[in-house]
Amino acid sequence: MRRKLVVVAILLLCLGSSLVAQENAENLGFSLDVVWLFIGAILVFIMQAGFALVETGLTRAKNATNITMKNVMDFCFGAIVYWALGWGFMWGKDALGGLIGTDQFFNGPMTLSIENGNFYKNWFFQVVFAATAATIVSGAMAERTQFKSYLIYTCFISAFIYPISGHWVWNPDGWLAQLGFHDFAGSTVVHSVGGWAALMGATVLGPRMGKYIKGTDGTVSVKAFPGHNIPYAALGVLLLFFGWFGFNGASTGIATVGEGGIWSGLNIARVCATTTLAASAGAIAALIFSWIWFKKPDASMTLNGLLAGLVGITAPCAVVSPGASIVIGLIAGVLVVLAVEFIDKVLKVDDPVGAVSVHCVCGIFGTIAVGIWANAPDEGVIGLLHGGGFTQLGKQFIGILSVGAWAAVTSLVLFLVIKAVVGLRVSPKEELMGLDLSEHKSEAYAGFQIFTNM
Amino acid sequence: MRRKLVVVAILLLCLGSSLVAQENAENLGFSLDVVWLFIGAILVFIMQAGFALVETGLTRAKNATNITMKNVMDFCFGAIVYWALGWGFMWGKDALGGLIGTDQFFNGPMTLSIENGNFYKNWFFQVVFAATAATIVSGAMAERTQFKSYLIYTCFISAFIYPISGHWVWNPDGWLAQLGFHDFAGSTVVHSVGGWAALMGATVLGPRMGKYIKGTDGTVSVKAFPGHNIPYAALGVLLLFFGWFGFNGASTGIATVGEGGIWSGLNIARVCATTTLAASAGAIAALIFSWIWFKKPDASMTLNGLLAGLVGITAPCAVVSPGASIVIGLIAGVLVVLAVEFIDKVLKVDDPVGAVSVHCVCGIFGTIAVGIWANAPDEGVIGLLHGGGFTQLGKQFIGILSVGAWAAVTSLVLFLVIKAVVGLRVSPKEELMGLDLSEHKSEAYAGFQIFTNM
Amino acid sequence: MRRKLVVVAILLLCLGSSLVAQENAENLGFSLDVVWLFIGAILVFIMQAGFALVETGLTRAKNATNITMKNVMDFCFGAIVYWALGWGFMWGKDALGGLIGTDQFFNGPMTLSIENGNFYKNWFFQVVFAATAATIVSGAMAERTQFKSYLIYTCFISAFIYPISGHWVWNPDGWLAQLGFHDFAGSTVVHSVGGWAALMGATVLGPRMGKYIKGTDGTVSVKAFPGHNIPYAALGVLLLFFGWFGFNGASTGIATVGEGGIWSGLNIARVCATTTLAASAGAIAALIFSWIWFKKPDASMTLNGLLAGLVGITAPCAVVSPGASIVIGLIAGVLVVLAVEFIDKVLKVDDPVGAVSVHCVCGIFGTIAVGIWANAPDEGVIGLLHGGGFTQLGKQFIGILSVGAWAAVTSLVLFLVIKAVVGLRVSPKEELMGLDLSEHKSEAYAGFQIFTNM
Repeated sequence: MRRKLVVVAILLLCLGSSLVAQENAENLGFSLDVVWLFIGAILVFIMQAGFALVETGLTRAKNATNITMKNVMDFCFGAIVYWALGWGFMWGKDALGGLIGTDQFFNGPMTLSIENGNFYKNWFFQVVFAATAATIVSGAMAERTQFKSYLIYTCFISAFIYPISGHWVWNPDGWLAQLGFHDFAGSTVVHSVGGWAALMGATVLGPRMGKYIKGTDGTVSVKAFPGHNIPYAALGVLLLFFGWFGFNGASTGIATVGEGGIWSGLNIARVCATTTLAASAGAIAALIFSWIWFKKPDASMTLNGLLAGLVGITAPCAVVSPGASIVIGLIAGVLVVLAVEFIDKVLKVDDPVGAVSVHCVCGIFGTIAVGIWANAPDEGVIGLLHGGGFTQLGKQFIGILSVGAWAAVTSLVLFLVIKAVVGLRVSPKEELMGLDLSEHKSEAYAGFQIFTNM
Repeated sequence: MRRKLVVVAILLLCLGSSLVAQENAENLGFSLDVVWLFIGAILVFIMQAGFALVETGLTRAKNATNITMKNVMDFCFGAIVYWALGWGFMWGKDALGGLIGTDQFFNGPMTLSIENGNFYKNWFFQVVFAATAATIVSGAMAERTQFKSYLIYTCFISAFIYPISGHWVWNPDGWLAQLGFHDFAGSTVVHSVGGWAALMGATVLGPRMGKYIKGTDGTVSVKAFPGHNIPYAALGVLLLFFGWFGFNGASTGIATVGEGGIWSGLNIARVCATTTLAASAGAIAALIFSWIWFKKPDASMTLNGLLAGLVGITAPCAVVSPGASIVIGLIAGVLVVLAVEFIDKVLKVDDPVGAVSVHCVCGIFGTIAVGIWANAPDEGVIGLLHGGGFTQLGKQFIGILSVGAWAAVTSLVLFLVIKAVVGLRVSPKEELMGLDLSEHKSEAYAGFQIFTNM
Repeated sequence: MRRKLVVVAILLLCLGSSLVAQENAENLGFSLDVVWLFIGAILVFIMQAGFALVETGLTRAKNATNITMKNVMDFCFGAIVYWALGWGFMWGKDALGGLIGTDQFFNGPMTLSIENGNFYKNWFFQVVFAATAATIVSGAMAERTQFKSYLIYTCFISAFIYPISGHWVWNPDGWLAQLGFHDFAGSTVVHSVGGWAALMGATVLGPRMGKYIKGTDGTVSVKAFPGHNIPYAALGVLLLFFGWFGFNGASTGIATVGEGGIWSGLNIARVCATTTLAASAGAIAALIFSWIWFKKPDASMTLNGLLAGLVGITAPCAVVSPGASIVIGLIAGVLVVLAVEFIDKVLKVDDPVGAVSVHCVCGIFGTIAVGIWANAPDEGVIGLLHGGGFTQLGKQFIGILSVGAWAAVTSLVLFLVIKAVVGLRVSPKEELMGLDLSEHKSEAYAGFQIFTNM
């Protein structure tokens, strides 16, 4: 009898001990996932500084305060409206067969439970992505957009335009998610959406004064306005590269073992390698291509080539091999140079920093790249070159076209409405004076002699 | 018999296996906590770069080397003296009923055990907080303080002033901790202490030459010296925002399950959300309020509004809801604009970057906010609006007043002694020339034409 | 019978449960290690921005685009060639008795298994170290090196020079690893290698025009070219300090319990403390020493002193006490000032940013410091002052000399070959004009008035 009691006691001890161990592991797993998403989110957050520096560096000194303020404030307004509305549209309970989320507006439960904890950690990670989509636009519309109109616009993209197409792709109930469209970290969801809005914004605004000058013989000469601080632009690109490791790496969502037994840790490690290689290849391709074409190793083209590689690998980073990631980066690096020249010289749309070429064109390319180079049978994503035929590629095109149409049409309407109601562009006098003095009544570089008549 | 042996063998296997699993989980937990505090500490560390850029950007070009060197060196001196003395005063064995720590000076055991490991991880996290308190002061005393006097002062704050009031609040044996005063990440412990010292320093120093000019009719006109690089200031604010996620987020101390079964992972996730929302609301409030008041969306006011939101949420970030965090941010954003104007125009204390308004005024407000909006019955912290009555609010005021009195009196004495013994201010000639040339015999921007007679 | 079945069932449940818990812990451990190496790698990555800013800030405005582009592109080219070749030479299967790795070229398996996951996480961490070694050189060769020659050189160091000596020390089969040479995070492997190449490069190139001017009486006067942006340099140093926590901290390789039961978490925590203290002591020593010697608290000397402390503690950071780390930092801070003066005034080698003094001289010193102050009997590393006699010190000297000879000879040959085949230096006219205009056909600071005839 006593022996039996001992056996039972040991049995219970074992069971208890192993349950404690399991619970500990569960707790640890949640904590590790929080830490991982935290790392990812703050890295994506610092991309705001990267964008601010790139855009400031590649534009003129007389608009430097204005462009940095736009970048700071689109995050601030974006965070509030994404909490109030955007999160609900993107992650709320699906309605209309995968079209829109419908609850969790103004969310943020106070009491701490796993469910609420999950809300908080996911919200923090998602809000920085929403801000990224919004901030892309400021570069294309730089040096001539009214500050208040910019703020109105940015609220709409973070509250409405970005979350709804985001719902389609990243909410498991979204119609593109159901279809099997694959966009791991957002070549389409984030970058193309921002890029399309940037294209619409720059088109509705028109070019900066003096950008396209019609000669007496009817030909149009295109003037380049050189950026006022290349080290800012380079530092900005390095900060973006740095932040992109969170953007792509933490898009696993967790660091522990996830649904279907997919080991996120392995995925994270692979994503870091493909991201590094594609970005590097993008910069190299743009450097060499611009060196051959323009007979000089152009700084801004090369920096945009690096960003092009990053945007291009954003969708396929978790499903392609390192070799393929280099190929994707090389193509993106050439593509961005061609796109910048085409938009500037042929379309004659004035995009001061090349945002449309980087984010829209290379975002589309990266999304297509999934359909070509993907080789991840476990996740069910196989591209053309690995025996997947045109199935995945077809799905990718459906995603690109539908999200592109949504973003382009809604942002075009938005800009036209803002233009009609409150005005979109500053006056020619204000533009010549620079937006720092005309909008903010202050100089960015007090005490420095600057030639603002450029 | 054999069967029994088999049962016993399996039992022992189970027990052993579950004990190994438990030990693994314990090891993993310690490692995860180290990683978490590491992340937090390096994020707080990079706030030094944020402060350096904000202060450099908002002051004049002729003092840029001097202000950046002060920010670099207050960390370096602070780290050494906090290792030698500060840590012991703050975290050593309590004496005098919660007033001061008394051992662990010059600490750092060589052998590696859990206990020593805990010392190292906590020291690394604490030293960057000490440096933050110290570096706040440099902004308010910018453009006229002797370099050597600044270095002497900063050693005293990191070795003595900050650690002792820190002991009161954060050492579990400290008298304010025993009282139930709640300051999660340091609105009072770090920011108010730095802010009070900044106020005393700016007052003892007197205003910069030409700041307040008495007219022939006896009225005093207040001159604004515009900052020389707004992008630096904006980048600095974004770096501070970035670092603040570590400042607030990692103030949980651990990422695993802590004492009383509080699940730190959940807390971290919530803290990130409230910090993001309060900072954003602060920037928005300051932007709109300054836009209405001064008829322009003022860049430096808006940037200070963002910082005000961060300082304001620092104490209550773990005990308030997202909605409350937005309200706290909005109030802090308005408050900082009012405080800057009041200190500049009414008190006529010359604080070149608004450090007193941001850190002292909003630090006090954030500490009060705990007593109003706190809603964390689990932690025993409930504010006025959630049925806690005036109990918590009363405790908060005791903390604010006692820590404020300590910091203000000790720093005032310190500045007066330094002024009497080695001098605090540079000569008028040196001030006009700029501290870069007069103190460091070099220009910050060699090759650039700068108007230093501003 | 039924009772027996129940016992057996519970037994199996226990066993299963504890095995699950063990597997969970193993999974979690891998994930935590991935997260830790990820953090380390991205921190080392952002050191590229730190180097870019330090080198840009300490050189002249007319070369700012060029130097930032060199820093960006050495990472990009380095990443590709380290993937293709460098990794294999460093980490591949050993040949020739510890001399060189021979497989894993062009690596990057697509399928995800633990083994492949380990490849990815380690590759990501290693590639940023390779880039650090390469980027050190750009500072010493600044303001006069052709862009294309720089790119050729940097490919060789990342593909060949760095990986082979790295194999000797860090590959467990390497001959210096077998010998017991201890270089925890790379005072020799990374910094000295970069520093030796920098010295060879600067020597082969010759000084900048106007640097050493022979007077009519035969004496040579040495001209200082002041840097054009001290805040850039200070921000760069703070970013390097920030990144160095990853450089040293994550050189544990893992965060969990490693081989021999060494608890990496403890080690990480200690490394953070010694790194902080040594860097701080280095800055303080250089500040005070330059203040006494040159009668001014020199900004660039102090910043280099901070870096000297970091380089000096890189080898011994895991095996010395906090007190010893302060001593090491103080010595490094004095040493770097002496070295800068010696190289500039006596050797008359023109190193615009002091890269040789910081990385080569202090890298050697840090490696020696292991042999003097090490006190880690568990790891079998004991220095002279702790009863280890000259054993460890002797091993350290063997490592310093062999790696130094390898790096110096191979890089000297490389530079001489590049000089002979494609040319190394720009023309005098291009040098006077500045490399931004001559190489990249653009200004770094369009719109600013800059005196380029300095």
